[in-house]
Amino acid sequence: MKESLLKVAAIQFEPIIGQKERNVNKMIKLIGKAADQGAKLIVLPEMANTGYVFATREEAYGLAEPVPEGPTAKKLGEIARERNVYIVSGICERDGINLYNAAMFVGPEGYIGKYRKNHLWDVDKVWAEPGDLGFPIFKTPFGRVGIIICYDGWFPETTRIYNLQGADIVCDPTNWVVVPGIITAEKPISAYVHMAMAHVNGIFLVCADRIGTERGTTFLGNSCICGPGGFVAGPASFDKEEVLIAEINLTDARRKQWTPFNQIILDRRTDLYDALLGYKTGKLHAW
Amino acid sequence: MKESLLKVAAIQFEPIIGQKERNVNKMIKLIGKAADQGAKLIVLPEMANTGYVFATREEAYGLAEPVPEGPTAKKLGEIARERNVYIVSGICERDGINLYNAAMFVGPEGYIGKYRKNHLWDVDKVWAEPGDLGFPIFKTPFGRVGIIICYDGWFPETTRIYNLQGADIVCDPTNWVVVPGIITAEKPISAYVHMAMAHVNGIFLVCADRIGTERGTTFLGNSCICGPGGFVAGPASFDKEEVLIAEINLTDARRKQWTPFNQIILDRRTDLYDALLGYKTGKLHAW
Repeated sequence: MKESLLKVAAIQFEPIIGQKERNVNKMIKLIGKAADQGAKLIVLPEMANTGYVFATREEAYGLAEPVPEGPTAKKLGEIARERNVYIVSGICERDGINLYNAAMFVGPEGYIGKYRKNHLWDVDKVWAEPGDLGFPIFKTPFGRVGIIICYDGWFPETTRIYNLQGADIVCDPTNWVVVPGIITAEKPISAYVHMAMAHVNGIFLVCADRIGTERGTTFLGNSCICGPGGFVAGPASFDKEEVLIAEINLTDARRKQWTPFNQIILDRRTDLYDALLGYKTGKLHAW
Repeated sequence: MKESLLKVAAIQFEPIIGQKERNVNKMIKLIGKAADQGAKLIVLPEMANTGYVFATREEAYGLAEPVPEGPTAKKLGEIARERNVYIVSGICERDGINLYNAAMFVGPEGYIGKYRKNHLWDVDKVWAEPGDLGFPIFKTPFGRVGIIICYDGWFPETTRIYNLQGADIVCDPTNWVVVPGIITAEKPISAYVHMAMAHVNGIFLVCADRIGTERGTTFLGNSCICGPGGFVAGPASFDKEEVLIAEINLTDARRKQWTPFNQIILDRRTDLYDALLGYKTGKLHAW
C-alpha cells in the first residue's frame, strides 16, 4: 500500500462559445487521447461544453443542460464506460429555472455526482446561482475525490475543507483569466496558488484550464498537476492545446506528516481559529 | 491616498547558535545597512539572536530573555529610536519558566508588542510553549501590522485571519528549512506558498529567512517581499547574506477587489465554511 498509483490527465483546449456539438466532439477526441496514454482520471476545463463569456442570461439558459439527464452528460458517460476512465468536466447546468456553473463526475460504472461552483467570478454573477451542494467528497475505487471550479481556488478555505474531509485529490475544471498587471502569461500566479494549496494540505490538485480569447477575455492556460511536493506536471503553455499527463501516488496524500513532530491536520490551532474565521465575527465587513 | 508608500526590508543572514552578542551586533549592523537605504520597516529572521537548533531545553533556557526587559530587546529598541525605524525580529523569549519562539516589534516611539509562534515546528516542540497571544494586530502610523513565524505560514488560516482583521502587512521572521525531496534550494516552495497567501488575501508579506547549516539542519534563504500581485522583491539567494529592499504601496492592501463583481472578503462563503473548518467537526481527526 506504499504505492497507490494513478495516471491523471488535465486537458487544456479552447471551447468555442455556443458551439456545443463542436466542443463536445473535441472533448471526446481529447479524452480518447488521454485514455490512449493510460490516463484513468481525466479533467477538462470549466464550462468546457459551452464556452464562458455569455452576453446575456438568456444565452446561458439556452445552452445549459440538466445533469446527468442532458446530452453532454450522456455523451461523457458513454465515453467513460467505453474507455474505462473517470471524467470530471465543467458544464453549464440547468436545474428547473436555475443555472449553475457546474462540474460533473462520471466513471465506467456511470454517473457519480456533481459540484456547483461556490465562489462566482465576474460574469458568473450575472447568470449563475451560487453553488448549493457544499463541498462533496466522491468515493472511487482509487480514492476520495473533491471538486473546485476556478475562483474557488482563491479561497484557501475550499482546499482546506477538502483536506479535512479526507480528499486525496481535488479536480479543478477552470477558466483562469488574465488579470492585467496581476496575473499574466509572464506571471502565471494562478498555477502557483494551486501548487501552494496542494503543498500546505498535502493533497493532489489537477487543474485543467482553457486557452484562447473569448469576447475580450483572455484565458491563462498553465494547466497543472500539483502534489504535496509541488508541481508534478506543468504548468502547461499559455496558449496551446495540451493533454498534460502524470502518474501520481495517492498514498502521498494520506501521509500527513512533515516530521515525526509535525502533522498537517493535528498541528492546526483550531482553538485560535474558531472565533476569527467564521461568519459571526462582527468585524468581518468593517474594514 | 492612492499611494501609501513604505520602504520595507527583509534581512537574510546566518545567526550562529549560542553566540548572542555576535548575532545581535550583526543584526544591528544589517539594520543600519537597511536604514541607510531608507527602509522604514525592517524584518529579521526567526530566533535571530540565538540560533535555532538547540540541543536541549536547558540550552534554550540559558539563552532566552524576557521581552521587552532583556538585553536584546533593549538594544533593538535603541537602534529603532536612533535610526527612526520599525523592527520586527525573531527572538528566543523567556517568561518565568515558559519559553517561546517569539517575535518582537519596536519602533522609534519604543516597544510596540510581541507575537508568540502558534504553530510549533519540529524541535520547537521540545523546548517552546505554543503561542498564547493569538494573532495580534499592531497599529502603526503607516498601517496595520500582523506577525507570523515560519511554520505558521503553512496554515492558510493565519494569513486569512490577519486579512479578516484588516492587516495591511504581515511580517514573517522565519527559519525555513530544507525538507529533502520536497523543499530544496532548486525547488523553494516556501517562497511560493507565501507569495500565494499574499495574493489570495490581497495583503503584503515580508519574509526574512536565515541561511546556513546548523547542527545538521540546512536553511533555505529565499527571503522575499510579496504583495497582492506576487513577488515584489526576491526570492533572495539560497545561501548569501542579503538585505532585500522594496518600496510597497500599502493602499494596494485595502483595495480588496478583483473586479467590480468580486471582493476578496465579501465573496467568502462563510455559510459553507463554518461547519467544516472548526474545532467541532467530529471528523477532523478521523482520517
